[in-house]
Amino acid sequence: MKGIEGGILAAAGFATGACHCGIRANTAKDDLAMIVSQVPCTAAAVYTTNKVKAAPLKITRQHLADGTAQAIVVNSGNANACAPKGEENARRQAELTARKLNLKPEDIIVASTGVIGQDLPMDAIEAGISMICLDGESTKTARAIMTTDTKVKECAVEFEIDGVTCHMGGIAKGSGMIHPNMGTMLCFITTDAAIDQPLLQKMLLNQTKATFNRVSVDGDTSTNDMCVVLANGLSGANCIQPDTEAAAVFEAALHQIMEQLAISIAADGEGASRLLTVTVEGAKTESQAEILAMSVASSSLFKAAIFGADANWGRVLCALGYADADFDPELVDVSFQSEAGTIDVCAQGKGLPFDEDKAKEILSRDKVETLIDLHEGNEHVSCWGCDLTYEYVHINGDYRS
Amino acid sequence: MKGIEGGILAAAGFATGACHCGIRANTAKDDLAMIVSQVPCTAAAVYTTNKVKAAPLKITRQHLADGTAQAIVVNSGNANACAPKGEENARRQAELTARKLNLKPEDIIVASTGVIGQDLPMDAIEAGISMICLDGESTKTARAIMTTDTKVKECAVEFEIDGVTCHMGGIAKGSGMIHPNMGTMLCFITTDAAIDQPLLQKMLLNQTKATFNRVSVDGDTSTNDMCVVLANGLSGANCIQPDTEAAAVFEAALHQIMEQLAISIAADGEGASRLLTVTVEGAKTESQAEILAMSVASSSLFKAAIFGADANWGRVLCALGYADADFDPELVDVSFQSEAGTIDVCAQGKGLPFDEDKAKEILSRDKVETLIDLHEGNEHVSCWGCDLTYEYVHINGDYRS
Repeated sequence: MKGIEGGILAAAGFATGACHCGIRANTAKDDLAMIVSQVPCTAAAVYTTNKVKAAPLKITRQHLADGTAQAIVVNSGNANACAPKGEENARRQAELTARKLNLKPEDIIVASTGVIGQDLPMDAIEAGISMICLDGESTKTARAIMTTDTKVKECAVEFEIDGVTCHMGGIAKGSGMIHPNMGTMLCFITTDAAIDQPLLQKMLLNQTKATFNRVSVDGDTSTNDMCVVLANGLSGANCIQPDTEAAAVFEAALHQIMEQLAISIAADGEGASRLLTVTVEGAKTESQAEILAMSVASSSLFKAAIFGADANWGRVLCALGYADADFDPELVDVSFQSEAGTIDVCAQGKGLPFDEDKAKEILSRDKVETLIDLHEGNEHVSCWGCDLTYEYVHINGDYRS
Repeated sequence: MKGIEGGILAAAGFATGACHCGIRANTAKDDLAMIVSQVPCTAAAVYTTNKVKAAPLKITRQHLADGTAQAIVVNSGNANACAPKGEENARRQAELTARKLNLKPEDIIVASTGVIGQDLPMDAIEAGISMICLDGESTKTARAIMTTDTKVKECAVEFEIDGVTCHMGGIAKGSGMIHPNMGTMLCFITTDAAIDQPLLQKMLLNQTKATFNRVSVDGDTSTNDMCVVLANGLSGANCIQPDTEAAAVFEAALHQIMEQLAISIAADGEGASRLLTVTVEGAKTESQAEILAMSVASSSLFKAAIFGADANWGRVLCALGYADADFDPELVDVSFQSEAGTIDVCAQGKGLPFDEDKAKEILSRDKVETLIDLHEGNEHVSCWGCDLTYEYVHINGDYRS
């Protein structure tokens, strides 16, 4: 498996396009995009666990009941959540897209991200759908789905299935409201491999748990999260079946794409100045490691300390202590690590003397890792987050304006 | 029952004193205090639920095993949590206090708040304990236990037990790390009523749930929280027994003191510019109302919106939706309220048209209430929090320095 260029167009038989249709008044940024396959695809999706679900999720879920789809229409600037005409408008968005592409509405996936509670401006959406040319680059579409994101998130890999070269690529957005279970996160993955639908759905769920659900930006989980995979089989490789070598290769590719996008979401968390990786090792179970690592990665106090490059490891212990998982505080070691080196700050639950200047240097880098050893077993999990900055408050104090 | 002056000295037979012993280098603020009763007291306490518990909590729990105590020694500036000589130093702090007051160490309650992971400077503590004069005011002691707090938190009430006037007063600190289960919160309550110990413990637990556990500043729960009640009986009133009119009067007084201190903690949350009250009504159960209200009061996104006086009610729906309690999103009404008026922003889960200028005016006041009606039953709960501001990030980005 190797990384390649091309994002969602790395796989054969996909096209995309994006345009500015004017959903939000104060920006000329693209806000509407489509991703289309030449042929029907095996499709799988996971959605937010928030009880308040945006209308496009409800419509998409209906359209994916048969496990197939051929195109995605997605807008930024308006979440179409808690909006008076939500489902009516999401359905219309799919219908307009189907008409343009000469497909059935049931083969269209609809996604939205942005402000909650306002009806979609359907005139703009309708004009935009007819305006979009399907000759765009992956990066342009990746940019069109961004809201408060500052960086494009896309990647692609190449892998072999039974001697045939296949491709997989993805784009994602998501910056605030990022917390377990995919806070305002959209992710679209395309591949030219062919795969059994229930197997694809199962792999997507597994890898969502191991990647996006291990990212926290602010503890909020959005109403609109969706991660979709479209597999069109145009590589000509055999259809991947459960419990085969080919399935393992495909899942590894899916893991790589999703992990890379998950980490780029954490690094681009709203206002973030540093990527924060929290690794819990020496755990009895994966679940114990995950709960404890997420608690630390989600702690506002610890995130603010990381912003200040302050080696306040007491807040690590504190966040472990209020997590919903047992452990023995008297066994815990903590160290901080970055390109600038490693420093041990706590052993067996007690503070160690350490060089504050060195700690400051280590914590001042763009990527900082917190290593926590529970000394209770052999499981380990990494979670990703970011620091809590003035800029986060600024962005979210006035997002609607 | 009526509010009175005097704080922890409103009750007969209590004395207090505070001094600057120099626990932290960069401040001349008082950092050590004592509260002493003339006679042994019936005592009850609740502690943090964090699995990492500071040494003074462990020692205090041992000393309160018999349900009696006579004095409290408390320091700010150092939490004595995860410190190499934690328990040894906490025990020594109690012993030095007992020697000064001519009491047994088992009758001393020890509490600490401040930075985690460093040993207490015992030379300073020892000098301070001998230096303290027990002729201080309640306000001076309330100030000595403050860390990042900006306002003194104290109150007192007067009530009658079987025709005898009794008094109860309290002081508290707590500003960051405030979340359910009493994040870095210290509260000391004195009363000259006499009361059965198991009854006092039960009431304290109930009222902690209904007051301090309904406050969230940042979702972090500290290692050091403690709330203590000392009842010395010097009013001469009869000893209060379970299931009596007197018990109800006493519990109402306890509720009033604790609620007032809880609200003042929320209003003085680190960096807070507004007190945020979140009320869920029309709930099927109190527990449902509490879980949903706490989720909204704890949402970083919603707290940042309140800082910006932005009526972003979508974040209210979103925070309800990821809370661990069922409800029907299609029934929910939301409105915002302050001295400047009330505005309805969401009905039956959908956005209402509303006047943005009026909403801005309402949300710009010091105290803002969010009202959520579930239309499912008759239970209601209020929780308290504050907005998320630049100042919170500033304070916590560099707390140790």
